[in-house]
Amino acid sequence: MNGNGPSKLVDPLEDPLPGVGTYEDFNTIDWVREKSKDRDRHREITNKSRQSTVALLHSVSDAFSGWLLMLLVGLMSGALAGGIDIAAHWLTDMKGGVCLIGFWFNHEHCCWKSNEATFQDRDRCPQWQSWAELITGTSEGAFAYIVNYLMYIFWALLFSFLAVTLVRAFAPYACGSGIPEIKTILSGFIIRGYLGKWTLIIKTITLVLAVSSGLSLGKEGPLVHVACCCANILCHLFTKYRKNEAKRREVLSAAAAVGVSVAFGAPIGGVLFSLEEVSYYFPLKTLWRSFFAALVAAFTLRSINPFGNSRLVLFYVEFHAPWHLVELAPFVLLGIFGGLWGARRECYTRMSGAELISELFNDCSLLDSSQLCGYKQPANTSETGVGNSLADRPAGAGLYTALWQLALALVFKMMITVITFGMKVPSGLFIPSMAVGAIAGRLLGVGMEQLAYYNHDSFIFKGWCSPGADCITPGLYAMVGAAACLGGVTRMTVSLVVIMFELTGGLEYIVPLMAATMTSKWVADAFGREGIYEAHIRLNGYPFLEPKEEFEHSSLTVDVMRPKRSDPALAVLTQEGMTVGQVEALVESTHYSGFPVVVSQESQRLVGFVLRRDLLISIDNARKRQEGVVSASQVVFTEHAPSVAADAPPPLRLRGIMDLSPFTVTDHTPMDITVDIFRKLGLRQCLVTHNGRLLGIITKKDILKHMAQIANRDPDSILFN
Amino acid sequence: MNGNGPSKLVDPLEDPLPGVGTYEDFNTIDWVREKSKDRDRHREITNKSRQSTVALLHSVSDAFSGWLLMLLVGLMSGALAGGIDIAAHWLTDMKGGVCLIGFWFNHEHCCWKSNEATFQDRDRCPQWQSWAELITGTSEGAFAYIVNYLMYIFWALLFSFLAVTLVRAFAPYACGSGIPEIKTILSGFIIRGYLGKWTLIIKTITLVLAVSSGLSLGKEGPLVHVACCCANILCHLFTKYRKNEAKRREVLSAAAAVGVSVAFGAPIGGVLFSLEEVSYYFPLKTLWRSFFAALVAAFTLRSINPFGNSRLVLFYVEFHAPWHLVELAPFVLLGIFGGLWGARRECYTRMSGAELISELFNDCSLLDSSQLCGYKQPANTSETGVGNSLADRPAGAGLYTALWQLALALVFKMMITVITFGMKVPSGLFIPSMAVGAIAGRLLGVGMEQLAYYNHDSFIFKGWCSPGADCITPGLYAMVGAAACLGGVTRMTVSLVVIMFELTGGLEYIVPLMAATMTSKWVADAFGREGIYEAHIRLNGYPFLEPKEEFEHSSLTVDVMRPKRSDPALAVLTQEGMTVGQVEALVESTHYSGFPVVVSQESQRLVGFVLRRDLLISIDNARKRQEGVVSASQVVFTEHAPSVAADAPPPLRLRGIMDLSPFTVTDHTPMDITVDIFRKLGLRQCLVTHNGRLLGIITKKDILKHMAQIANRDPDSILFN
Repeated sequence: MNGNGPSKLVDPLEDPLPGVGTYEDFNTIDWVREKSKDRDRHREITNKSRQSTVALLHSVSDAFSGWLLMLLVGLMSGALAGGIDIAAHWLTDMKGGVCLIGFWFNHEHCCWKSNEATFQDRDRCPQWQSWAELITGTSEGAFAYIVNYLMYIFWALLFSFLAVTLVRAFAPYACGSGIPEIKTILSGFIIRGYLGKWTLIIKTITLVLAVSSGLSLGKEGPLVHVACCCANILCHLFTKYRKNEAKRREVLSAAAAVGVSVAFGAPIGGVLFSLEEVSYYFPLKTLWRSFFAALVAAFTLRSINPFGNSRLVLFYVEFHAPWHLVELAPFVLLGIFGGLWGARRECYTRMSGAELISELFNDCSLLDSSQLCGYKQPANTSETGVGNSLADRPAGAGLYTALWQLALALVFKMMITVITFGMKVPSGLFIPSMAVGAIAGRLLGVGMEQLAYYNHDSFIFKGWCSPGADCITPGLYAMVGAAACLGGVTRMTVSLVVIMFELTGGLEYIVPLMAATMTSKWVADAFGREGIYEAHIRLNGYPFLEPKEEFEHSSLTVDVMRPKRSDPALAVLTQEGMTVGQVEALVESTHYSGFPVVVSQESQRLVGFVLRRDLLISIDNARKRQEGVVSASQVVFTEHAPSVAADAPPPLRLRGIMDLSPFTVTDHTPMDITVDIFRKLGLRQCLVTHNGRLLGIITKKDILKHMAQIANRDPDSILFN
Repeated sequence: MNGNGPSKLVDPLEDPLPGVGTYEDFNTIDWVREKSKDRDRHREITNKSRQSTVALLHSVSDAFSGWLLMLLVGLMSGALAGGIDIAAHWLTDMKGGVCLIGFWFNHEHCCWKSNEATFQDRDRCPQWQSWAELITGTSEGAFAYIVNYLMYIFWALLFSFLAVTLVRAFAPYACGSGIPEIKTILSGFIIRGYLGKWTLIIKTITLVLAVSSGLSLGKEGPLVHVACCCANILCHLFTKYRKNEAKRREVLSAAAAVGVSVAFGAPIGGVLFSLEEVSYYFPLKTLWRSFFAALVAAFTLRSINPFGNSRLVLFYVEFHAPWHLVELAPFVLLGIFGGLWGARRECYTRMSGAELISELFNDCSLLDSSQLCGYKQPANTSETGVGNSLADRPAGAGLYTALWQLALALVFKMMITVITFGMKVPSGLFIPSMAVGAIAGRLLGVGMEQLAYYNHDSFIFKGWCSPGADCITPGLYAMVGAAACLGGVTRMTVSLVVIMFELTGGLEYIVPLMAATMTSKWVADAFGREGIYEAHIRLNGYPFLEPKEEFEHSSLTVDVMRPKRSDPALAVLTQEGMTVGQVEALVESTHYSGFPVVVSQESQRLVGFVLRRDLLISIDNARKRQEGVVSASQVVFTEHAPSVAADAPPPLRLRGIMDLSPFTVTDHTPMDITVDIFRKLGLRQCLVTHNGRLLGIITKKDILKHMAQIANRDPDSILFN
């Protein structure tokens, strides 16, 4: 890096002009340049490492900084997720009452401290008083019931109000799930402040408030957003990641995996979620690192132990009953239901989503006190045998009541979810979707069980459903239904099956889960190919080039590029012969983000590409700092300075800011190949040539507008650059 | 597709000239063209589908053909894997004796048929006779023992000899694991016959023989090869996959996942193995399809049930004891051992690898009769409590014997593996590597257990290792050691952890496994960055552009491209003005696989690119079929035919075979970006321009030679195109 002339303005490593090579808000990054910049940096450090011990240590610490950052992201996200769980638990309990020993204890902790609770009634102790007891002095009677109910509603409304106000006042970016925006950011878009410290603080607080208020929402989306905020903030500790947008996005991809890992205790599922659903650029290195970060986060959360058991599993399934091939039919039915629900995309009680799902997934042993297990008890236990406590039983009155309540809950949950989604609070989509699916699945499962009980001699059930045998597991149906609905909404497949499998620990049920999620994806795709995140991205007009969809139109690049046949010619700079004033006039008369540099206007042979921002900053800087640079100074992009007249002002040499290797395609390139190049290389723009002459330019936005036009949508719905 | 002039020789869909657009053996495919061809095909079918019901049905069947193919691949591979397991089991038993009811019964099946076996001695019945009984009439005494032993050796040698002979005589491609070659094929190389029906038949038979002979080898590699052969053969049923090399490689990627899925009963691990280790191009669509195929295969194998239990798990681990943070230190030690072992890459008894691993992974309950569980029995069981049968115990004489045997087995297994690897039989690498690691891990585990038993009051063990408590699980150490050694050899991380986790069913042990595999990868990488498959690819000189390694040298494209500064100018065709004779002379005087087409020799402005093979086939065809085409005929690549003199022969129009959108980079493009473009787009060659003029060409082979040169290797070791 020695011996450079004074004309070389920009050095990728030393960055002498602040701003050159950076991006403005709501712009798209150039992946190839960013990665190339990082490789330059890395090469420089490796070369220097041979010179001194300090440089060698710097090189080693640089090589391990990625892993250290992953460790920090995992620890911070895991700790925050644990904190959110504990705070939400405490606030949820506060809706019911208060602890007299100290208001900071939750119900369980309060009674555990008091030592007066018995083993049977662990959640009853004198130190924990309901609001009615505290206000009226008694916990009996209709009046106390009404007081408790009113206090419950009061707290719920207060929490919701606080959440909405905080989001509106301090961090509007903290609302919703955040996954569509994170997808867009990972694809290379810049939204300043979306992953900032204010968003992190407000999102964490309002997520606790929203969850405790009892609104119908999940926390996996917000936790992904929280983990990404942590990662973005921690990136500032390392130059490697602070200065490079592409490298930072690798860390954010891993953070998305961490978010799902802590939301469900599913590290492998989290990594696959990031790979399948969220990430744009996911090299193998990121796969290893995100797996490491997801594990650290899951391990940290397990150490904090918010669920009160040392498992990593949120909804642990205790049944390991086999399933029968015939059951694939109802599983596929659930898949179709899930797909339809996901396609309609509008679609729950006082019990929180996670608690409801957990109860629906469970199987009934004879001791279970849940109404869902209100089967008629066999008159003589010795008839069915001691080990057959899980055998099929006829439904009793309790079960019928529970089923009616479930059907009502289905309708009610659909309504309340619409309300919640309209509210500007942090909200996830997984738990509410899973709850709808779990209710539908449990209803079908109980139906199948009763059918099998009363028709165990029919040709369908014969041979595997003898009376007293355990052949239908309604909990499994709930599990499959939950997966189907979530799959319909998000169009996830592999990552969903792995998350469900990690969530429930049931390795045996991969095939039913797969059958249901594939069916659900196919059905939902038949009604429209985009999942809820893609729909959200499109509605917001973000410049997101979907990597999953194939470009199927037969247009050529010449049909999509600008200028169009009727437009004025492309604005180009020549490598010599233009003055500073002419360049400034050209830049100001257009709104383009960059200009191609050609040998001469006549030949239109391409030399390079200059970004508007870099051009303006460099000219401004030269006018201020460099002596003799006036409007009449010549701007030169050539390697060697041209000879100028003795009285002429010295030329302004700008080769340093020119991209010497702009991407080009020919005008005859089919658009599907051009789109492929844009996606795979992460381009921002590409120049179009015909027989070696520059003809036009094609940008990501041009492609998105063209795609919108083909799909008969308003091409102007693509809002940003 | 109507109204084309007679001059348009090639239509991507109707393929009138056989050979145009296909590849020769030992050549690299052009991914972009192949995918573009497939999109053209798909577009044509979609457009036609609006015209008639038959076309609509064709369109629907085309859309589902990928899933159908996956189903068939899963079924066929699962059935073959089941067949191999059953046949290998039968042949292994045959080394010990024969069934009198029918020679086609294996030992267990024979005694099960006879109904004379008791519950305690299920494998002893009069119908199953050892060779000594059959030959000498008695199974007692030293003589019978010697006869049995000699027969055992005789069969083992016979099987090995048969395997070697069959491979040598019929299908030399059937030897070894096949994964390096499959990696190369998936990256776009063509090796005809490597995935053919003969290879499949011979590999299946010899794999059975090699496994039954008791050689130290695994079957995961060969099963991946077998699954890929199945996929390749089944591709011939569907035009979509038969005619398109890129689409076929998507199916092969899924087949690699199927191979691992049936080898270990690990569908998720198989998919991740394909993604992390084998595949080159792995779009999300392939992720879904390979997961589906892997599940179908695992399900088929489970239905055949070769392991005699209905689990998908090969080595089922029954312990769920927690592990302590302090134990991470010995786990990391095992990782270092694995890394060192993988770096040295040379490195087993009469027990087969899989049986040995299964025994090493197991924990000891008091009933276990294995010598590895030869602990001193507590004098009074009530002292330690009834539930503590797994508590730490002092080692007994049996255990010490077992440990000596293990240490000897470690040395012996290392020797025999070298012999096996040198043999030309189908052999995998997973099981032998895992066996070495499992032995080392078990030895360390037992050591730790004894240390904890005798020093349970020292500061390390205090608090979690009270006497009589179960604190060290030697089986876990064996598991971690197996993962570490396998990771060192193959450099897998995430897929390895997931395979181990699926293999053993132990969700709790992800963190120890991850710690060991990451350490092992880091240690092995410190000694050399390439895993065993990459080393094998390099030794064979296959043109494989490693997607994991970053190109870190600061060269520019101009330094790597051809022609070099001192070489003659690049051989180019002009778009008009050359005669058929001139073109033929140019093609024959060079050995290049393709020629750029320029506007004129003076301007060197690029128009397109023509492949040598297509050019020769088209000229040959025109000379034979097209009237008036002689050596003096003009070859034209322009859109409109030039006016020719009335007496001149008619021009030969070849625009149809010209690639109108060749990829170009500028001479100033840093090589790291060029390498990135080659990898991501799967290019075969790229043209180099300077200021809009054609300057040279750069091919995959040029890049590989340049990389070999940088690494101080012989650039001529890259053998193929």
